[in-house]
Amino acid sequence: MNFTVEQTGEFLKDHDGYLILTHVRPDGDTVGCAAALCRGLRDLGKTAHVLPNPETTSLFSPYLEGLLAPEDFRPETVVSVDMAARGLFPDNAQQYLERVDLAIDHHPSQEFFAQNTCLDAGRAACGELIYDILRELGPITPAMAVPLYVAVSTDTGCFQYSNTTADTHRVAAALMETGMDVFSLNKRHFRTKSWARLQVERLLTERMHRYEDGKIAVAPVSLSLMDEAGATEEDMEDIAAFLGQIEGVETSVTIRELAEGGCKLSVRTSGGLNATKVCARLGGGGHAAAAGCTVSGTLAEAEAAILDAIRQVEAGA
Amino acid sequence: MNFTVEQTGEFLKDHDGYLILTHVRPDGDTVGCAAALCRGLRDLGKTAHVLPNPETTSLFSPYLEGLLAPEDFRPETVVSVDMAARGLFPDNAQQYLERVDLAIDHHPSQEFFAQNTCLDAGRAACGELIYDILRELGPITPAMAVPLYVAVSTDTGCFQYSNTTADTHRVAAALMETGMDVFSLNKRHFRTKSWARLQVERLLTERMHRYEDGKIAVAPVSLSLMDEAGATEEDMEDIAAFLGQIEGVETSVTIRELAEGGCKLSVRTSGGLNATKVCARLGGGGHAAAAGCTVSGTLAEAEAAILDAIRQVEAGA
Repeated sequence: MNFTVEQTGEFLKDHDGYLILTHVRPDGDTVGCAAALCRGLRDLGKTAHVLPNPETTSLFSPYLEGLLAPEDFRPETVVSVDMAARGLFPDNAQQYLERVDLAIDHHPSQEFFAQNTCLDAGRAACGELIYDILRELGPITPAMAVPLYVAVSTDTGCFQYSNTTADTHRVAAALMETGMDVFSLNKRHFRTKSWARLQVERLLTERMHRYEDGKIAVAPVSLSLMDEAGATEEDMEDIAAFLGQIEGVETSVTIRELAEGGCKLSVRTSGGLNATKVCARLGGGGHAAAAGCTVSGTLAEAEAAILDAIRQVEAGA
Repeated sequence: MNFTVEQTGEFLKDHDGYLILTHVRPDGDTVGCAAALCRGLRDLGKTAHVLPNPETTSLFSPYLEGLLAPEDFRPETVVSVDMAARGLFPDNAQQYLERVDLAIDHHPSQEFFAQNTCLDAGRAACGELIYDILRELGPITPAMAVPLYVAVSTDTGCFQYSNTTADTHRVAAALMETGMDVFSLNKRHFRTKSWARLQVERLLTERMHRYEDGKIAVAPVSLSLMDEAGATEEDMEDIAAFLGQIEGVETSVTIRELAEGGCKLSVRTSGGLNATKVCARLGGGGHAAAAGCTVSGTLAEAEAAILDAIRQVEAGA
């Protein structure tokens, strides 16, 4: 069944023994939603836990403190948050693939894998929808507001991405009104860079190549560059945006050398060039403004191939 | 007189022939307020212009297009926006020092230099207050919403600084509801870096010094570094924040070598150290978390002096 917010509230009041699932490579939205929903259910007197997600990074794990399910927990009701598809279930959640009672989500690509689904594809973050649902259950406490703010702010690049709506700001206003401290959250998530990330940015600035009067920027990220910077995968988060911010750059390409051979490319465009068409020429895909592909060969070969693909698409080929 | 928002609205409806003043080194808040107020007054059928401010940068000048006062304009009513003090009048506004009819401001340090003042020191941006006032005059159009969004977002670091309140988000929501495009504004003001700025950041990353296990970071900015990066003053905006974002850094110091000799230091702290106490030891001042001073001598001498001052304050001296 497709649930409204009100129906979702009724459902949550009527059930108990909750296990909440988050998606693979958990981001602030899925973690924040899980934490806030878990707290809201516990405030109702329910038993509720979040399934530990082995991929949770140290950036987001603090929000789940005290909320993780013990290993022997046998749920009565399984709820997924911010999960669009069966392919996004972590390994330890595979056992629940066919028994999710309720999916709460904001992705237009939602696969309706659950018994019941509360979907609002108009929301920038699933956290906005969870906020509406929690209001059906009772007052929003600061302990819920903190993870919800993390959900909403991280999914919108702190209100900067094009998915941000008036509703996003309205939810942020309501969360702040609970008295929570957003400044330290903003510093943690948007104004903090690791030393290794800073070195990656320094090396990319030194080594990037620019074409067509600076409209195209290409950054080859070799395995040795990663070593030199002392960088891990966590330090590389959203690195494609680093090139895209340079004044005058309309098309940016980040090429990651892979340990197993070949290269992974991310293409970002802001000047009207269709990134998906570019990547499709090399067997990849994505969105109009952000796409990717994986190719064989060296960094230099990958760079030549993507430049050729860009020029072909620019020429209308 | 101290005006409420309602009284300010009445005053604006009752008068005509408006000249609007902005402060020296105009930022997004003063420019955005002036542009929005000017448009609101014109929509009421009033004659209204903004006094050209020679220091307006290319980042903000587009918002004033078509709104600047002709040279021979003789105002009947002078309004200042986001101006706290007489010391902040640009040279060409000095003639209005003793004849400002209305000051609209949000600074607690407001000097009450005007005949009438509408002050709300609780607002993060003066733009929030102008929004309230414009609502007294009529509907908020997208043409007013764009500069108001610039005012509110730039004065709060796009909703990240500690001055951001629930009201800030509420105003942003209302502005977005007019149908304006915030994405391109966010990209322009928060997600764009000049090539020269990128080079400055690269060079500072290479050359900064770290002390006390990385808790203190000091960046000497020589005149030759500026040359090497091809950087102008515009590229150096908020450069002190660049060091402050590094993980683990609690005290950051930027030292600018001055063409006229000596050095200018900016100190930012997030770990409890009082920046004003540090700078006071070298004859400067500021806020608890952000202060500055100017010293004679070389970059190396300035660095030694500020490190000594930090240690003395840390030691409770």
